[in-house]
Amino acid sequence: MLTLYSYWRSSAAYRVRIALNLKGLAYQQVPVHLVKDGGQQHSADYLALNPQGLLPLLVDGKTKIAQSLAILEYLDETHPQPALLPSDPALRAQVRALALHIACDIHPLNNLRVLQYLSGTLGVESEAKDTWYRHWVDVGLAAVEQGLMRLPGRLSLGERPGYLEACLIPQVYNARRFNCDLNAYPRILDVVAHCESLDAFKNAAPEEQPDAQ
Amino acid sequence: MLTLYSYWRSSAAYRVRIALNLKGLAYQQVPVHLVKDGGQQHSADYLALNPQGLLPLLVDGKTKIAQSLAILEYLDETHPQPALLPSDPALRAQVRALALHIACDIHPLNNLRVLQYLSGTLGVESEAKDTWYRHWVDVGLAAVEQGLMRLPGRLSLGERPGYLEACLIPQVYNARRFNCDLNAYPRILDVVAHCESLDAFKNAAPEEQPDAQ
Repeated sequence: MLTLYSYWRSSAAYRVRIALNLKGLAYQQVPVHLVKDGGQQHSADYLALNPQGLLPLLVDGKTKIAQSLAILEYLDETHPQPALLPSDPALRAQVRALALHIACDIHPLNNLRVLQYLSGTLGVESEAKDTWYRHWVDVGLAAVEQGLMRLPGRLSLGERPGYLEACLIPQVYNARRFNCDLNAYPRILDVVAHCESLDAFKNAAPEEQPDAQ
Repeated sequence: MLTLYSYWRSSAAYRVRIALNLKGLAYQQVPVHLVKDGGQQHSADYLALNPQGLLPLLVDGKTKIAQSLAILEYLDETHPQPALLPSDPALRAQVRALALHIACDIHPLNNLRVLQYLSGTLGVESEAKDTWYRHWVDVGLAAVEQGLMRLPGRLSLGERPGYLEACLIPQVYNARRFNCDLNAYPRILDVVAHCESLDAFKNAAPEEQPDAQ
């Protein structure tokens, strides 16, 4: 049985839940509360498992894997069907480049520890912090919108979602939480609407998790 | 012939130069100046090639690939020998998780556009900006130091560098530019010293590039 250290609102953990569901893999969740007790990801017990001190962490027997995209690659290598990535190297690269744009150039700028640093250490006001948040979402999603239009199909695997959608849907979930205007991204909204109708995505949604508040 | 859109000091482009050299692949560079003309990565010509507006971009015939880690994966898939990643899925995952920690959780917080936003839009003073920079380097490299100690060999491919070192050495180059104290990371410094003695890394160094200033 796979074990996922997760938090309902962690969008990196949400990516992995989607991927596990798309592959039909059973897993148990261990909740790690990112706010309570000053952030349980900083506890000695958790750091012994994952020195990066971030979520998610997947445990598969003796193997412990940090970083959501490393987990997605591992799942695709160890449980190849159904695939999360296309088989053609050039297309795999397009899909990874879009997923990495979300995972490197949107999400890390807006995650909890960075927002805490902005307000706590730098004294950035709430409104300026929200503008920061929406700025990186806007710059990033505009590029993702362009990238989606260059893919040969509606979804990253033609008619099927995978690696890219596992990153995109959590990012859009976050953007909506912060009231970002997404009307400039019709292609993204079409992909999100389709994915949100699928059980793999529905069951991975934050509000459906055992630790949801 | 492969073409790399690059800037001498872009550490994401530096990663790809290392990977190309490790594989012994010939390539030509097209310089994109990240500061001149308000940043040439924002020009219409470059955005037509790469809507993400970031470096690097690899062009292989009709295939255009953004995002350094997507390029590394593509190179490993299309030119498998010498490999950048170990063959065992669990070990591949460890290596990717460390590389992604650098690529997602250190570098994007400290790259040019973010530092420009901090000083330009948020009015963060120079000293506080440097503290921000060093904070994310410290938090990130401390985790990478722990992760390196869990690898079975001295380097990510035993006695040979690859994917991980292609990310680590540029990150350390950046950290030194900003006078980060790296003495707490002896394992990282050992890896860096070894890699810096190899031609693949020497020839990829920023100061060796045709557009170096």
